Amino acid sequence: MKFMLAKTPQPPYYAVVFSSVRTSVDDGYVEMAERMVELAEQQEGFLGVESARNILGITVSYWQNLESIEKWHRNVEHRLAQQYGREKWYAAFKTRIALVEREHGFEK
Amino acid sequence: MKFMLAKTPQPPYYAVVFSSVRTSVDDGYVEMAERMVELAEQQEGFLGVESARNILGITVSYWQNLESIEKWHRNVEHRLAQQYGREKWYAAFKTRIALVEREHGFEK
Repeated sequence: MKFMLAKTPQPPYYAVVFSSVRTSVDDGYVEMAERMVELAEQQEGFLGVESARNILGITVSYWQNLESIEKWHRNVEHRLAQQYGREKWYAAFKTRIALVEREHGFEK
Repeated sequence: MKFMLAKTPQPPYYAVVFSSVRTSVDDGYVEMAERMVELAEQQEGFLGVESARNILGITVSYWQNLESIEKWHRNVEHRLAQQYGREKWYAAFKTRIALVEREHGFEK
């Protein structure tokens, strides 16, 4: 599911670009990452998610508006994942919140 | 280089999120992908790039403004890469152009 291109609506909508470098600590990381996608999908205003990882990981989630992003950011279970992320799983990360103004695509 | 978090300036600036699913055809893909990063880095208004790939690939490049993105899109060598991309390397892709409004980060 998260390995496919997200089917987002016509812009404008929001993208949250979460870029991260992992530590060598796994301890529950994969389960939590999967749970966070599952949980995000249930949130109001959620539009889709795309994810890829090598040394650097990039997860882009798409949202209807800033309010839905802020609400997700404050979600209690998500908060716990953010705390574990800082404590255990991530050596560094950057979150960028961006307004998608246009898009184009291609499919064979 | 492209495996690190990009050191972008204070927002606002632009992000181009290029999400793609590859075909099984390699034929020059890796070389062209590396060349495009090298070439993008030389463009006016280029701020950085981040890239990761599993089944889905995500490359996010950062730019000062829409003009620099449009100029890069029209770059002759980049145009050729785009054409090969459609003909050979990509089963599907989506390009989203987004205005980064805010960011926060973390580093151990």
